[in-house]
Amino acid sequence: MFFASDNTSGVAPQVMAALTRANAGYAKSYGADALMTRVRARIRDLFQAPEAEVHLVATGTAANALALALVTPPWAAVFAHEAAHINTDECGAPEFYTAGAKIVGIPGADGKLTPQGLGTALERIGEAGVHGVQRGCLSLTNVTEAGTVYTPAEIAALTALAKARGLPCHLDGARFANALVATGASPAEMTWKAGIDVLSFGGTKNGCMGVEAVVLFDPAKAWEFELRRKRAGHLFSKHRFLSAQFDAYLEGDLWLTLAAQANAMGQSLVQGLARVPGASLRHPAPANMLFPWLAPGTNARAAARGAVYYAMEDQGREYARFVASWSTTQEDVDQLIAALIP
Amino acid sequence: MFFASDNTSGVAPQVMAALTRANAGYAKSYGADALMTRVRARIRDLFQAPEAEVHLVATGTAANALALALVTPPWAAVFAHEAAHINTDECGAPEFYTAGAKIVGIPGADGKLTPQGLGTALERIGEAGVHGVQRGCLSLTNVTEAGTVYTPAEIAALTALAKARGLPCHLDGARFANALVATGASPAEMTWKAGIDVLSFGGTKNGCMGVEAVVLFDPAKAWEFELRRKRAGHLFSKHRFLSAQFDAYLEGDLWLTLAAQANAMGQSLVQGLARVPGASLRHPAPANMLFPWLAPGTNARAAARGAVYYAMEDQGREYARFVASWSTTQEDVDQLIAALIP
Amino acid sequence: MFFASDNTSGVAPQVMAALTRANAGYAKSYGADALMTRVRARIRDLFQAPEAEVHLVATGTAANALALALVTPPWAAVFAHEAAHINTDECGAPEFYTAGAKIVGIPGADGKLTPQGLGTALERIGEAGVHGVQRGCLSLTNVTEAGTVYTPAEIAALTALAKARGLPCHLDGARFANALVATGASPAEMTWKAGIDVLSFGGTKNGCMGVEAVVLFDPAKAWEFELRRKRAGHLFSKHRFLSAQFDAYLEGDLWLTLAAQANAMGQSLVQGLARVPGASLRHPAPANMLFPWLAPGTNARAAARGAVYYAMEDQGREYARFVASWSTTQEDVDQLIAALIP
Amino acid sequence: MFFASDNTSGVAPQVMAALTRANAGYAKSYGADALMTRVRARIRDLFQAPEAEVHLVATGTAANALALALVTPPWAAVFAHEAAHINTDECGAPEFYTAGAKIVGIPGADGKLTPQGLGTALERIGEAGVHGVQRGCLSLTNVTEAGTVYTPAEIAALTALAKARGLPCHLDGARFANALVATGASPAEMTWKAGIDVLSFGGTKNGCMGVEAVVLFDPAKAWEFELRRKRAGHLFSKHRFLSAQFDAYLEGDLWLTLAAQANAMGQSLVQGLARVPGASLRHPAPANMLFPWLAPGTNARAAARGAVYYAMEDQGREYARFVASWSTTQEDVDQLIAALIP
Repeated sequence: MFFASDNTSGVAPQVMAALTRANAGYAKSYGADALMTRVRARIRDLFQAPEAEVHLVATGTAANALALALVTPPWAAVFAHEAAHINTDECGAPEFYTAGAKIVGIPGADGKLTPQGLGTALERIGEAGVHGVQRGCLSLTNVTEAGTVYTPAEIAALTALAKARGLPCHLDGARFANALVATGASPAEMTWKAGIDVLSFGGTKNGCMGVEAVVLFDPAKAWEFELRRKRAGHLFSKHRFLSAQFDAYLEGDLWLTLAAQANAMGQSLVQGLARVPGASLRHPAPANMLFPWLAPGTNARAAARGAVYYAMEDQGREYARFVASWSTTQEDVDQLIAALIP
Repeated sequence: MFFASDNTSGVAPQVMAALTRANAGYAKSYGADALMTRVRARIRDLFQAPEAEVHLVATGTAANALALALVTPPWAAVFAHEAAHINTDECGAPEFYTAGAKIVGIPGADGKLTPQGLGTALERIGEAGVHGVQRGCLSLTNVTEAGTVYTPAEIAALTALAKARGLPCHLDGARFANALVATGASPAEMTWKAGIDVLSFGGTKNGCMGVEAVVLFDPAKAWEFELRRKRAGHLFSKHRFLSAQFDAYLEGDLWLTLAAQANAMGQSLVQGLARVPGASLRHPAPANMLFPWLAPGTNARAAARGAVYYAMEDQGREYARFVASWSTTQEDVDQLIAALIP
Repeated sequence: MFFASDNTSGVAPQVMAALTRANAGYAKSYGADALMTRVRARIRDLFQAPEAEVHLVATGTAANALALALVTPPWAAVFAHEAAHINTDECGAPEFYTAGAKIVGIPGADGKLTPQGLGTALERIGEAGVHGVQRGCLSLTNVTEAGTVYTPAEIAALTALAKARGLPCHLDGARFANALVATGASPAEMTWKAGIDVLSFGGTKNGCMGVEAVVLFDPAKAWEFELRRKRAGHLFSKHRFLSAQFDAYLEGDLWLTLAAQANAMGQSLVQGLARVPGASLRHPAPANMLFPWLAPGTNARAAARGAVYYAMEDQGREYARFVASWSTTQEDVDQLIAALIP
Repeated sequence: MFFASDNTSGVAPQVMAALTRANAGYAKSYGADALMTRVRARIRDLFQAPEAEVHLVATGTAANALALALVTPPWAAVFAHEAAHINTDECGAPEFYTAGAKIVGIPGADGKLTPQGLGTALERIGEAGVHGVQRGCLSLTNVTEAGTVYTPAEIAALTALAKARGLPCHLDGARFANALVATGASPAEMTWKAGIDVLSFGGTKNGCMGVEAVVLFDPAKAWEFELRRKRAGHLFSKHRFLSAQFDAYLEGDLWLTLAAQANAMGQSLVQGLARVPGASLRHPAPANMLFPWLAPGTNARAAARGAVYYAMEDQGREYARFVASWSTTQEDVDQLIAALIP
């Protein structure tokens, strides 16, 4: 019963097998390996983006922070939801990588920015001439931190506001596969067709060991990205082992298969909650992460029964975060639901 | 015939097996995995340093830059050999991580600092009061970039000069195992007993996939290290896969066995060079890396015969860099030597 | 009718005379001038703080950003009012100087933090372990950006919350003199006796040409301050001209006399507004800055009549910012009031 | 007998008078003052550069560091003489402002770079692909730290090498006026006509109180400069007092008159040294700064007689630095020479 995070799960067998295969013999280091060539081609195909540049790093924070630094000068603002990972869970990595940009946290129900909320922030920030920080970029997250998803149309509505100000747009897709599965959108529809310029394309949470692709739909700054990555210590010498992961991840749509399993288990949890007295969802939960309100005492009882997840409280009211992963089984779900029922 | 770098070799079978084992089931993320507890204990034992703190990162540049930033304020100088990796091969990572410290590159024959050279630099820098950068730390590298090694006594002589100025001392041990094998020194003798405060303890080049341990002999700044690591995107969510590598690396002295093989092949190359007309060593080569002068045309001939290594020139004279790794065989060595002979 | 800011006024005659006097002959540069010795002594006396260290810079942004950088690590949060100058009017200077710290803007009526508002922020930030930014420092502003003032007791209540978390406390006193005059508090009461560790003690807005004193009540980091100041290009070579300003500013309580005039004119404006139809104060205005709501069309009319000030709108409602300075006269006030009346 | 530095001298009477004049009434703050318009026009005329953008700051370190940051990315090298002020006397300001660029200190006799020395450095740095720092910019200093000067032709020869690599070129002109007087070159000849893109045009050392103009011959980055200046706390609110200084400085060629006096006194010192037994110049001294070798005991004797200057030693041999300023008189020179003679 491990529902604390999709990052407590392991590596999908196909990815592990790819690592073993990649270990044969010698390979060029620092990204010049043959597998990387294939990864690049796969991603260009997948996104119908033949010019896109692709670079791999090992963590989501590195992907986000490097991507943001590429498009945000130090004296500018990153517009993001106030609960965004970049704002609350990266110990200031974007500030470090951008040399001091300012994240403007914008409120919004269910972890999602609204055009109105973003519009207000875009008006408020950047009007002070040289005295205030300038408008820098928009950063969205899909699946959001609240477990909700943006549709391509919702993303397009937000990026349109940013682009009207000339701002580049970043998508934190640590759970990109889960968002696609939940919405039925294609990779292109969810990204460049909806105004996204830079994507953090997550692998780690969805069955890889530690790899994320940064996809630059505009390749103009690709070399700068490489310099920033190296300078940050995120260029792997034995890079073939990052390539191998992502290559296997994309092979035969494994990534979507894994996300489909995670989402299906998320939905099974949603259904199972109907049987838990006093439980109700804090936010819509169309993907693999849900935040149910729970009756008093539920968290303690479930913990005592061996369920592992984040138990929280909001103004005295109990709730939880459950995250299903590629390796979550129906049996796991059934056990968790059973543990929640008095 | 792959002698370009020890990072073109793969992962030792024992390490790969450990990764597969570590993949079973769920594990706490971000360094709270059980394997990390064992790695910490192993390193404390190995170094006879029960108070030492240990953190893992995935690249040598991250290990060095984070370590240096921990001990060097932005307005200070890092004293290092002018050819040190931190000075020439990390695209300014130490400057990035320290927020702008200054690396003072000091010349020295065979890639090694001398007490005289260091002493001069320590006198020259830091005497300008508030106008100049202050003295920050000493950073040594063993095995050096020239393939030579420092003995513990040589390290102690250098750190003594730094410590007389109150400076902390860092050792870049990307090839730490090779240095120990070459000198016969113990881990403790080569580090804290010789005045080293922070060690970058390399695993990647010597049979791991991508893992380095930063060992803080003084644990006072361990929490700051963790914050810096997270903020830099170098804290792995699926951290167990870093732990597993280092755990297997230390198990049964695998790390020393692998380095012994690399060094033995390095020495076999040295011997083989005796059969190559016109070849002679640029620097002593007691470990796994050598820089032979070669007769004109040798590099082109060897390349045509399939030998892969760095071919260079100094004032019109040909030379090469050969690096042997844990996976280099006697057959590889014999083939390379044969490829060099007209 | 110049009420845009106290920084559009000139230099008080006594300060200008001091600059001329200081120009005689040669003087040691970089802060070693004899006048600086006297300034240091004066400030120590004034604040009953014999250990305090004092350094001069030429701008308020430099004073604030250097002070904050001294007490806030890069991975930490600066707790401040959301409208604080450091958050909205310094183009990210604190982020630049701290190497990426995060300003947490806290709402609060009339430009003032409340213990409840601060308490909530102190609980929300810093609870995420290594994943979130850490708690760094508290920064208050007196006179606030809304023209209101904190009493020493109010400051003490806020710093107590910060100190319970171990946080140092900074006071942005760009209008420190005006705050003292408005409250009747002594310099010591408003600062270290109320829990302030570092003060930006403004001179520029109150009759100097360009000088602010940074007062460190705990001298432990004085040398670090000097290094940071030099490294930022804020150490003046002809430093005597900063010293001379501050020396004259303090001589015979000139600073309080100047602030008393500014505040008296501010109060005269408050009284005059009673004669302006439809005018009412947005915030209490006990010092030299006021924000009156105005009847529709008032701003345009006043501008046409030559009044210079910031005209603003909030949700369609007109208001203004009037700032009186040391050089504002009763005649200026009368003219402005006349310009506002239909 | 004050020869320690030209920054121990005061403010020229014409500049002081201009400050007093500028103090009348109210003025727009933050650079929108009318005097700044005139300064900009004057500098464009003076340099025959109608497109140039001009911004004022108060210190030379600010001018240099902001200028370098404008043209050098964090992962790049600043090529400069090893004795350049930016490398040795700014406590790492360029590293701070550039977010970690690397100053490559190049040796060269008499404080001057040679095409050969620069060429070697340009070849050595920037050839390591993503692993090393990239080539960033060239920074020259005129008058040099050794008191020597570059002719426009010498500058052009150096900038040509940099421009062949696509690098922008900066001139640290803290003593720009002295260099022009010494060479007879025009402002345009010494700068953009010789390949200079950004100039730190010094006022402070040559009779101002504290003001330097940064002249951007290519105005494309003018707005970025303004943001960087504000963010660094170097935008003055009472900016008219910077403008007034520079305006008076340029009025009627005052700046050249002052520099001519300083240089004449420098030359008088050179001639006077002929009467000092054992004295000889370490470097040619065509401007206002000289470094004479002195007979043993001279420094102590002169100090005892009240001469104030930097006394130094090189390998046991005594020497001195004498700097003449706009306010140095023939009597001062005569006294110093007398103090040196046994």
